[in-house]
Amino acid sequence: MSIALKFPDGNVKNFDDGTTVLAVAQSISSTLGKKAIAGKLDGQFVDLNAPLAHDGAIEIVTKDGDDGLAVLRNTAAFVLAAALSQLNPKMRFGEAHADEDGFYVDTDQDGAQISVDELNAVKDKMQAIIAANEPIKAVSLSQADAVAKFSDDPYRSQLAKAAGDPIAAHQLGDFVGFQEGALLPDLKPLKHFALLSVAGAYWEGKSSNPMLQRIYGTAYYKEADLEADAKRRQEAKEHDHRVIGRDLDLFFVDPKVGAGLPYWMPNGATIRRTIERYIIDREVADGYEHVYTPVLANLDVYKTSGHWQHYREDMFPPMDMGDGEMLELRPMNCPSHIQIYKHHIRSYRDLPMRIAELGMMHRYEKSGALSGLQRVREMTLNDGHTFVALEQVQDEFKKILQLIMSVYADFNITDYTFRLSYRDPANTAKYFDDDEMWNRSQSMLKGAMDDLGLDYYEAEGEAAFYGPKLDIQTKTALGNDETMSTIQLDFMLPKQFELSYVGADGEEHRPVMIHRGIVGTMERFIAYLTEIYKGAFPTWLAPTQVVMIPVNNEAHLDYVNNVRAKLIAEGIRVKVDDRNEKMGYKIREAQTQKVPYTVVVGDDELASASVSVRRYGEQDSMSQSVNMFVSAIAADVANYSRTDARAQK
Amino acid sequence: MSIALKFPDGNVKNFDDGTTVLAVAQSISSTLGKKAIAGKLDGQFVDLNAPLAHDGAIEIVTKDGDDGLAVLRNTAAFVLAAALSQLNPKMRFGEAHADEDGFYVDTDQDGAQISVDELNAVKDKMQAIIAANEPIKAVSLSQADAVAKFSDDPYRSQLAKAAGDPIAAHQLGDFVGFQEGALLPDLKPLKHFALLSVAGAYWEGKSSNPMLQRIYGTAYYKEADLEADAKRRQEAKEHDHRVIGRDLDLFFVDPKVGAGLPYWMPNGATIRRTIERYIIDREVADGYEHVYTPVLANLDVYKTSGHWQHYREDMFPPMDMGDGEMLELRPMNCPSHIQIYKHHIRSYRDLPMRIAELGMMHRYEKSGALSGLQRVREMTLNDGHTFVALEQVQDEFKKILQLIMSVYADFNITDYTFRLSYRDPANTAKYFDDDEMWNRSQSMLKGAMDDLGLDYYEAEGEAAFYGPKLDIQTKTALGNDETMSTIQLDFMLPKQFELSYVGADGEEHRPVMIHRGIVGTMERFIAYLTEIYKGAFPTWLAPTQVVMIPVNNEAHLDYVNNVRAKLIAEGIRVKVDDRNEKMGYKIREAQTQKVPYTVVVGDDELASASVSVRRYGEQDSMSQSVNMFVSAIAADVANYSRTDARAQK
Repeated sequence: MSIALKFPDGNVKNFDDGTTVLAVAQSISSTLGKKAIAGKLDGQFVDLNAPLAHDGAIEIVTKDGDDGLAVLRNTAAFVLAAALSQLNPKMRFGEAHADEDGFYVDTDQDGAQISVDELNAVKDKMQAIIAANEPIKAVSLSQADAVAKFSDDPYRSQLAKAAGDPIAAHQLGDFVGFQEGALLPDLKPLKHFALLSVAGAYWEGKSSNPMLQRIYGTAYYKEADLEADAKRRQEAKEHDHRVIGRDLDLFFVDPKVGAGLPYWMPNGATIRRTIERYIIDREVADGYEHVYTPVLANLDVYKTSGHWQHYREDMFPPMDMGDGEMLELRPMNCPSHIQIYKHHIRSYRDLPMRIAELGMMHRYEKSGALSGLQRVREMTLNDGHTFVALEQVQDEFKKILQLIMSVYADFNITDYTFRLSYRDPANTAKYFDDDEMWNRSQSMLKGAMDDLGLDYYEAEGEAAFYGPKLDIQTKTALGNDETMSTIQLDFMLPKQFELSYVGADGEEHRPVMIHRGIVGTMERFIAYLTEIYKGAFPTWLAPTQVVMIPVNNEAHLDYVNNVRAKLIAEGIRVKVDDRNEKMGYKIREAQTQKVPYTVVVGDDELASASVSVRRYGEQDSMSQSVNMFVSAIAADVANYSRTDARAQK
Repeated sequence: MSIALKFPDGNVKNFDDGTTVLAVAQSISSTLGKKAIAGKLDGQFVDLNAPLAHDGAIEIVTKDGDDGLAVLRNTAAFVLAAALSQLNPKMRFGEAHADEDGFYVDTDQDGAQISVDELNAVKDKMQAIIAANEPIKAVSLSQADAVAKFSDDPYRSQLAKAAGDPIAAHQLGDFVGFQEGALLPDLKPLKHFALLSVAGAYWEGKSSNPMLQRIYGTAYYKEADLEADAKRRQEAKEHDHRVIGRDLDLFFVDPKVGAGLPYWMPNGATIRRTIERYIIDREVADGYEHVYTPVLANLDVYKTSGHWQHYREDMFPPMDMGDGEMLELRPMNCPSHIQIYKHHIRSYRDLPMRIAELGMMHRYEKSGALSGLQRVREMTLNDGHTFVALEQVQDEFKKILQLIMSVYADFNITDYTFRLSYRDPANTAKYFDDDEMWNRSQSMLKGAMDDLGLDYYEAEGEAAFYGPKLDIQTKTALGNDETMSTIQLDFMLPKQFELSYVGADGEEHRPVMIHRGIVGTMERFIAYLTEIYKGAFPTWLAPTQVVMIPVNNEAHLDYVNNVRAKLIAEGIRVKVDDRNEKMGYKIREAQTQKVPYTVVVGDDELASASVSVRRYGEQDSMSQSVNMFVSAIAADVANYSRTDARAQK
């Protein structure tokens, strides 16, 4: 018997049934035979020495590239599990996987947790296993044998049941694992690896299942790569809003209370409230009418809007109210604002009509996709919808764009680009059917960008079904592109909901609806800001703006409280640290908490009606009269800390 | 055969089977025989001339009292239905009932609506029927006959099916109705009645059923009573927040989009936002830490809190997220604030810890109970929870109470009383089991009230299971009592959720939790304010604070816009009415919209750098320099329009 293997270049060759990847590689060249570490048959990883049992597309995996890294990391995960098993023979094992960042193993030892400190001992054990370099054997077990063997380990026995019969497994010493993917034929290349962290992970990802402990690590073929990765991780950690959010006590998410449902602690809530008031005031000044609309609506509303038909998998399950009503948590605010528009008969004199809201919405995200404030299930969107006559599109678009750029300036967001999306001219049938609407509005958007002298990228075929749009892309702290703001024309919803206005001609006309977001959801925006500011929020946003420290409570606390009262009268968020702690400790804590101003008051300050002020991130203090200090900080807040924030960049 | 009838005085007499209420009444006295209009057998109304077929407790109904009124109104409803049927023989009929306010009939005429204007014609027809005074006959129909007779009327045929077999019905001319209750033996007493309004009502109260048109009326035996009722209705209407809410475009509720889910239009949203910012700022200044917590939580949280066991019928149905999680819209915010407390280890130095939020909650109310902003399914509560050591209860209670009274003063709420609720000393087993907690805390609350020199009513046995409380009762615009604020101690939830703090002694202690609400939900509070202010909101709350009217756009609009800019710089909400309408019309509209300041500008004002100002509700205008006007209105807003609001009372 022979099997036919097709190579990536398209050639097909026959081999004996049961030939190995190694033999196939050697048949091509002895160099490739030496470099090969595993193979892929029809896209599935196979061990270097495993017999190939059927026809298919073959690839030879070497150390180079992602597949090579995956095999290395998969091996590292297996060795980690084997090491853990040697350290604690009663340990149970869930999933183990390599991924693009490294690898992980899920474990359970009857509630006992491995701490980060113990990871060193685990690493030592792994190194001992690697030094011994006993080969990992491919073994075959009957399902019955496997289930019996792991009767003490509910996870491995479930994995065994899911793995078919007989089960292809790997064995190292006494340890048997059911890990998918190929493993290295020998352990020598596994030199540069690290164990990184531990975290909780539900068995099968379901919160109703027990929580296992997930141990994360990574591995590379070269030491330099491992070092670069460590540096990258350190940098990401310094920027990571989840880490900063914990350190500065901004928010938390507890999957036991609700996955993807953040609790905003007082510090985070202060930042959010400041931003919410800011953005509402900016919008009201720009002619928006702010409303509050319910987070629930009759499911029929989302059938009319089409969300239920096209977007259902991202929506929460409807609630049967038992009186004939099905209520749905809204996935978007547009239909709510349409209700506001429809509540009165509108005339051309009412247009543009600008409706805005900090609208809470709910979207169903898989629990595995949830992350801090970045990916959540409940979110509050800085949302707005403008209803305009077609001929008003250009002016309104400009006005929105100017508001967005002005808001960016206040947050010191300077690195952004524009992407204008049109329908595909070669395939207009795919889009809402109104050529005049498309042609006029696309040229109005383009005209507006040109009038404002802005650079932009034109993306044909990237428009939504319902209209053209502009996306504004910012750079995250780690350099990735993110859509921060969007202005989208919509010809469809006004039709679905039969919107109209009475024109100057006395006739009914259909308005165009413009969806626009300036700073996006509060959750994502504050995650973004936390990362770009590395937690050092500019004064106007900082939860605590000033910490005041009396050198000696008895002598200076009254004076400090006097200054505090003046700051509070200016609306400044100030804390007095009168705890019974050392001065140096208090100052360090104010720096750790990234408080913009730390003020120390002793005898000298008392005598001269002054304060000693240290700005966050600076080494030196500066003496200032109380009045000067108070007016300087008030000015800092009033101008959105622009000088300040730029200096910190 | 005879039947035994028991009279209200306890006497039992025997009568022939088939005797009538009239005969029974005559047997007692001829006066009672003359006064009798119907009877009640075992609490069920029976017609005066209907044969009594079984033993039971008998009451004779006369014109006096509520039962007499009910019979009159039930008759009026029947005559209304008969009149409608004469006017439109194809009309279909749903329920018809008397209630404590009057009566109503549900009708359907294939989509055609009766307008309020047409009610006069209907009333004329009713009067013609009454003048003819043809008696209403009691008739008996087999169910099969009845269903066949009303094959064109799905509602009456369903009512017939539900009414048993044979069906006792009433007939007047051709009209046959299945109304429950007794009808008058003759129509002469039906003189003083009115048809009041029409509204939509779902068949059987279910929003999935067709909507019928409900026609409301009322009736009395005396003209003076009808007139007094009309006056009362007029007054209620002037105060009714639903009416004012529509007239001033504050909010709307549309059962088709979601029963009990208000949409706040820009005017109402502005009032709400002003109150929200005000109350947050007051609370933050008073040491509260504001948070945002999710409106959803894992159902387990409400099992731990006990809400699910004891409060389920008021909760929304849980949502199965398909990944093992059941999510529940929260009916209260307490468990959310407990999560905030539990997120860190707390020490005695952290107490009292004050957590506050404008927390959105959802409660299931029957659709029939929903009313404007007063009874809703989605609401946002001015909520706060203070965690204290037992010995701190008195001081914290005082502090909360002083904040409440200070907030009342800013809203000019002066008419309120205190009710202090203790556990029942005769039945302490009914309550949370900790005598020391109860005794100490009750005496602390009482002590605080005495220290503050407040009058209060002590209600033994009115405490909640979990602790004593203070309710603050205000008077609504119509003079009813309403609980506006509450301060409730809770010994139970800290136990359920195992809350603790580390005391000065280094040991773990359990805190007491204080639930407190100052202005209640935004929905109910704004309904209340709308009613007590009759829609004339004090300047600091008014959606539009100033309307400016140029006498002539060409000559005066620039000047008006200058003044407008000065007002906006002070944060004043101003509108310029430059429409092409008559001056008198514009001024009247500003008065109808109850705008606090109407400013007119013509040549004189332009020449003297002044404005002509008219305060809402006053007849005369006053000339003021622009600067004086701007600073006067800024002061009006800054001091919560106290002088202003009091003057209007």
